[in-house]
Amino acid sequence: VSIGEFDLIARWFTRPVRRAALGVGDDCALLAPAPGMRLAVSTDMLVEGRHFVSTVSPQRLGHKALAVNLSDLAACGAKPLAFTLALALPRVDEDFVAGFAAGLFALADEHSIELVGGDTTAGPLNICITVFGEVPPGQALLRSGARVDDELWVSGTLGDARLALEVLRGHVALDGAAFERVRRAMEVPQPRVALGLALRGLATSAIDLSDGLVGDLGHILERSGVGARVELDCLPRSAVLAAQAPELQRECVLAGGDDYELLFSAPASLHAAVLQAARGAGVVVACVGHISTGSGLQVLGADGRAVDLAAHRAFDHFRA
Amino acid sequence: VSIGEFDLIARWFTRPVRRAALGVGDDCALLAPAPGMRLAVSTDMLVEGRHFVSTVSPQRLGHKALAVNLSDLAACGAKPLAFTLALALPRVDEDFVAGFAAGLFALADEHSIELVGGDTTAGPLNICITVFGEVPPGQALLRSGARVDDELWVSGTLGDARLALEVLRGHVALDGAAFERVRRAMEVPQPRVALGLALRGLATSAIDLSDGLVGDLGHILERSGVGARVELDCLPRSAVLAAQAPELQRECVLAGGDDYELLFSAPASLHAAVLQAARGAGVVVACVGHISTGSGLQVLGADGRAVDLAAHRAFDHFRA
Repeated sequence: VSIGEFDLIARWFTRPVRRAALGVGDDCALLAPAPGMRLAVSTDMLVEGRHFVSTVSPQRLGHKALAVNLSDLAACGAKPLAFTLALALPRVDEDFVAGFAAGLFALADEHSIELVGGDTTAGPLNICITVFGEVPPGQALLRSGARVDDELWVSGTLGDARLALEVLRGHVALDGAAFERVRRAMEVPQPRVALGLALRGLATSAIDLSDGLVGDLGHILERSGVGARVELDCLPRSAVLAAQAPELQRECVLAGGDDYELLFSAPASLHAAVLQAARGAGVVVACVGHISTGSGLQVLGADGRAVDLAAHRAFDHFRA
Repeated sequence: VSIGEFDLIARWFTRPVRRAALGVGDDCALLAPAPGMRLAVSTDMLVEGRHFVSTVSPQRLGHKALAVNLSDLAACGAKPLAFTLALALPRVDEDFVAGFAAGLFALADEHSIELVGGDTTAGPLNICITVFGEVPPGQALLRSGARVDDELWVSGTLGDARLALEVLRGHVALDGAAFERVRRAMEVPQPRVALGLALRGLATSAIDLSDGLVGDLGHILERSGVGARVELDCLPRSAVLAAQAPELQRECVLAGGDDYELLFSAPASLHAAVLQAARGAGVVVACVGHISTGSGLQVLGADGRAVDLAAHRAFDHFRA
């Protein structure tokens, strides 16, 4: 493989520059941030066997690699502007790159953002994307703003990605149509960008659910210096997941990981405003509990008793 | 390995935030770009066996990973502001991470920049850094501005990194002290940030030499729509390289790669100003040729005859 071939591959990612002052192909990209705006930056690295399975289609992988990064912008209430892509490929595979680029750019176009720079190298498959967004000063949704008595909300449904993983692991059997639905949740997550924007001025804290509710809510509680109580039965789940055994459902919604839904807190007085904002963003949200004094999370089952959370660790990319 | 241990590793990279509005630990970092400035962005991915040898010390690897990115900012004439780091590690190795962080932050401190976000995952060793810098509108050094009769300049010396690689490959023997010097060039490159800043308003084009002079100058020529003539004997080299066989010297200075020096063009009328700017930046620069009409590069040997460049391909990360 010569570097010339990799240059060729890089061309799959070269498109005309629209908004950026200067795009791919110089030493740096040049962006012109809107005066007075804060620039939100997030970076995520995806590794085969950790963040995606080797059988995922290149299109879906391209989508997901950008989606998990946009999800971080969504959790900040930032408007996406641009992104960079660094890609290590074990070999030059034009089918893979063409599919990957198609999935990546379809999602980028949906959010009107551009690829402004990148790097391509030979190496074990690795995808590193850095996204840029903008948010007015003081309006970013942080993890640290949850206040006692705030309501806790979750967008979409939880646990389907984990259920799909359990099927791939051979732990659970699903019929073809059901598996396709949960597999789609795992491979084609929808970043809640519109919801994040709509929650500016409403949510007191927010995070995107990548490692599972227990772990990610823990970050909000720690940063905000508060506790929380969540009703297990209020955690939204798909019909496919709702048909599974109760223990599996619990594991998937509490510690599933890879959900890329937003978890956020908002004052109870803004309950109706949150519902309206979500409707405007085209996303279903569910009130799942509230912020409490003290520290730590209590999850209550239908019987009113606390669920033992020690059994539900955060989704662990490094589990043997 | 549990994700908890990786969290611990991530803490090696957590330091108090100074300039950024919000640093590591939320969904996004928030930067406050200076109003009216362009934001320069570059991303580089480093893979073991491609961009560094497995025997490199963690400190030097941390330095180099940031240095190659700062070199891109230097080539744009941008002032470094901040960076993100995504790191895939095959296992939790605190000695490695501590050393890597020490080398990384030493260089970051030298340039007064902060780590504002990151990601840590298990996987084959992979380092992806994205750097941010600022440059006033219209003052970025691009690849596209070289004009006929401009002089061509190179900073520092060329080819030592490639010479070190040839020693490691067993193709060349050097005594210990000489090897240490060229190995240092390979493992601890100095990004020419001060020079890049000093060249604003002087250089008509610039690029950093990462793939070798022939290949990288080719980018300037192509983008600028011009040709160039370079004197082989004018290409600056260290005493260690100057003591090697002529063919090896030629290969190292023309196509060595991993130099991270700046190659730039400037009007001949600014010859003295360029020398003064370089002196102010504490970097030696050498005039190595000039921009010509037509297209393509001609390298002239001491005998005045053109060197056959087909034998000197750009440094190839993917060579078998």
